[in-house]
Amino acid sequence: MTARTLKSNLQVLPHVHKINTGFGIVYMNIGLFLIVLGIGMYVPAIVDAVQSNQDWQVFAICGSLVTFIGGMLFLSSKNNYTTLSVKQGFLITTSTWIAVPLMGCLPFIFSDLQLSFTEAFFEAMSGVTTTGSTVITGLDGLPPGILLWRSLLQWLGGVGIIAMGVAIMPLLQVGGMQLFKIEAFDVSENFIPRSTHLAISLSLLYMGLTLVCGVVLWLVGMTPFEAACHAFTTVSTGGFSTSDSSIGHFESASIEYVISLFMVLGSLPFILYLKVLSGNPLKLVRDTQVHGYVAVLLVIIIPLSGWLCLSSDYPLSQSVRYAAFNVISVITGTGFASTDYTAWGNLSVVVFFFIMFIGGCSGSTSCGIKIFRFQVMISAAKSYLKKYLFPRGVFISKYNGQPITEKISGSVFSFVFLFVVSLAIITLCLTLTGLDFATALSGAGTALANVGPGVGHLIGPAGNFQQLPSSSKWILSFAMLLGRLEIFSVLVLLSPAFWNQ
Amino acid sequence: MTARTLKSNLQVLPHVHKINTGFGIVYMNIGLFLIVLGIGMYVPAIVDAVQSNQDWQVFAICGSLVTFIGGMLFLSSKNNYTTLSVKQGFLITTSTWIAVPLMGCLPFIFSDLQLSFTEAFFEAMSGVTTTGSTVITGLDGLPPGILLWRSLLQWLGGVGIIAMGVAIMPLLQVGGMQLFKIEAFDVSENFIPRSTHLAISLSLLYMGLTLVCGVVLWLVGMTPFEAACHAFTTVSTGGFSTSDSSIGHFESASIEYVISLFMVLGSLPFILYLKVLSGNPLKLVRDTQVHGYVAVLLVIIIPLSGWLCLSSDYPLSQSVRYAAFNVISVITGTGFASTDYTAWGNLSVVVFFFIMFIGGCSGSTSCGIKIFRFQVMISAAKSYLKKYLFPRGVFISKYNGQPITEKISGSVFSFVFLFVVSLAIITLCLTLTGLDFATALSGAGTALANVGPGVGHLIGPAGNFQQLPSSSKWILSFAMLLGRLEIFSVLVLLSPAFWNQ
Repeated sequence: MTARTLKSNLQVLPHVHKINTGFGIVYMNIGLFLIVLGIGMYVPAIVDAVQSNQDWQVFAICGSLVTFIGGMLFLSSKNNYTTLSVKQGFLITTSTWIAVPLMGCLPFIFSDLQLSFTEAFFEAMSGVTTTGSTVITGLDGLPPGILLWRSLLQWLGGVGIIAMGVAIMPLLQVGGMQLFKIEAFDVSENFIPRSTHLAISLSLLYMGLTLVCGVVLWLVGMTPFEAACHAFTTVSTGGFSTSDSSIGHFESASIEYVISLFMVLGSLPFILYLKVLSGNPLKLVRDTQVHGYVAVLLVIIIPLSGWLCLSSDYPLSQSVRYAAFNVISVITGTGFASTDYTAWGNLSVVVFFFIMFIGGCSGSTSCGIKIFRFQVMISAAKSYLKKYLFPRGVFISKYNGQPITEKISGSVFSFVFLFVVSLAIITLCLTLTGLDFATALSGAGTALANVGPGVGHLIGPAGNFQQLPSSSKWILSFAMLLGRLEIFSVLVLLSPAFWNQ
Repeated sequence: MTARTLKSNLQVLPHVHKINTGFGIVYMNIGLFLIVLGIGMYVPAIVDAVQSNQDWQVFAICGSLVTFIGGMLFLSSKNNYTTLSVKQGFLITTSTWIAVPLMGCLPFIFSDLQLSFTEAFFEAMSGVTTTGSTVITGLDGLPPGILLWRSLLQWLGGVGIIAMGVAIMPLLQVGGMQLFKIEAFDVSENFIPRSTHLAISLSLLYMGLTLVCGVVLWLVGMTPFEAACHAFTTVSTGGFSTSDSSIGHFESASIEYVISLFMVLGSLPFILYLKVLSGNPLKLVRDTQVHGYVAVLLVIIIPLSGWLCLSSDYPLSQSVRYAAFNVISVITGTGFASTDYTAWGNLSVVVFFFIMFIGGCSGSTSCGIKIFRFQVMISAAKSYLKKYLFPRGVFISKYNGQPITEKISGSVFSFVFLFVVSLAIITLCLTLTGLDFATALSGAGTALANVGPGVGHLIGPAGNFQQLPSSSKWILSFAMLLGRLEIFSVLVLLSPAFWNQ
């Protein structure tokens, strides 16, 4: 394929009615995210100032700096873009998810916490990607500003991925995402204004959900500050907490059930909420992905509760509570812990290791392989089984009424293949930095799936990532980025063909 | 799809010119394999008799019994089949691979060894599937008959899978196997005679290779008995040895290099040898799968040797020798060990865990996911990466000159997906029998990929499977069967549609 035909392929893209090939729109987008981030820093500044904590100056200065940089980037590019090329879409996603933690980590370095750049970047990347792995111990004694900033990073990362998820990801058609392409966008000549409008609606919805979650958490016993921090990290399925012992600190069944509920709500497709609000309440109930998701949760929680009840001293009610909370936390990729579930026995280690990869629904803040991909793969595997038996038969599975073509299932399978290959390579790299088999494998998994805790005494739910060598932290930071942006979006940037367009 | 259309689909199969729907051909095939097995038992009977070991009676009696059963099954069915239906093909593979270990385990039960039925069946299944996991300790002190019988089981299992691989598997088109369909078979009306002829040629080749291997092993220092046993288990990529410390027992570089060579030869596509013998020597060199395989071996062995040399006291020559032998042993699914490679450090544990799944070439005795599937998946993932960049572009990869259609890549991906799902489920089941994370995960992997040793002190290269609970052994036996028959062939039998044909 020559450069000429490549170019012509690009030009007939449905979304692109007039090519703008410059990086202006990329700068503009990074600028926009940095402005939001910089303004966000004023929130912990105010909280720290009210409590007379000296860190308020750090937040205020960093906030001003980041807002200024963001503003310069934003203003330096003209503001009348209506189209977006695939190349620009890929550049925007990856560059934004690098720029934001790079700026977002400044308060960790300059505040009283005085983290090294490596640790600060790891913490910020873990926040922005809604992973929830932490390198900080002694959370319970930290000033409120830092705690709030960690939570805000996750919350902003969550709203960022939802906006990207509707505005850019369907255009990129990565890993079977074309199943969720919104019909109206297909022939749009005003791609950016339309998707911006949708992204704003979803963000408002996300804010509303966070507010409700915060109020309910406050009603069931958290302080207003704790409720705010945990609402930010619950709805974004992030998992940062204000205590070293995570949600276990509160020792409250009602708090656990409320958080469980909102973790599930945060991992459903947000676009369906809009449909519900616009008068189609059945959309949520009838969605194939939601069905599958609820079924998966029940199929794991019910037997695990039974096993826990039989094999431990916990009564049934407590077994259900522990199993439900921690399974939901890991499947949604939140990563809160109410107890050290890996201490329950060998079975729980294996169960929690595998469910880490499942993830929530597409179009939510949760990460991992995601339910719809498992559904597509199971359908495809079933139809191949049938084809072996009846080689001349024609078997077409459907997903939410759309046929699962071999193109879609191939795209999904390729995604999962690259996920597994990435998992193997990252595990290998982590081993080279000195980690053992279980720590390296589960660390790579928890980072790629943006979950939070791994398996083993070091990075398990009772440990944290502080003890790891710096090199491991950089590898894990990269893995979180890779996982959050659906792998392909990052790998595409490494291909020479991308830059030769 | 109604039952009527199913039937008509079945009838227009290219291979089936006249339907014979009975189980006769299945019984005939099982009978044939049992006759071979029964006659095989006379070999250890003779060896034991010569050495005045009482076990000779056990082998003679069992051999007569099995030959008799096989003969009855063979004679009870008429002998003029020329066609084979897909349903019969699936039934033959699975039922044969269950019947053979069921009969082949008798000597383990009734000889001086006096294994329980569980252990005997595990050992026989591990033999027939060329896995090489063992439950027997004190191999060095065992009578020759039993040692020879273990080796013969693997050798017969190897020739069995090669015969099945050309005669039946391409008909079943499981997991991308259609890439290797032999052109002449496509329009054949004499499917069975033709494939029988090919299977016999390949078996003769296999015998020749074994003979050469045995002679060379004898020349480099093994006793004739050891050379025979190891030739049987090397060419079949099985891995049973005559010593608890496997090949490490001989402490000989030349033995290790000879075995390395023959393990590689045993894991190349046997059909290519026939082409070489018939005057096309370049076929072997130009084959895409062989290229990829050699590249994979080098890419793993060279850096691992370097790392071992730098991180241990071994000189370079010994590092290369250890790395080459053990990597080849695990990738080919043989499972010999010349040293406890998991003691080299964390890196080696992870490397040996992952390479376990790679496997050799299709059309050989080795198992695992296999090289061609990785090549197809990498091609598919690459072309999806390109499609994201150039949505209107057309990208078709080729494999040995054949286009990799989305149907083929989908079939390969489905196979790997089911492989990973099976791995997860078997790991979970093993955990329920009390095994820890690393033992359960690597045990499931080593059984599914028919390798032999796992990871961890219990089932690692320095341990064996004796200490595992009986339930674990049954689960592992099933996993070996599943892996050996490419998963789909077994799962198809569990689908109601199969029986409703």
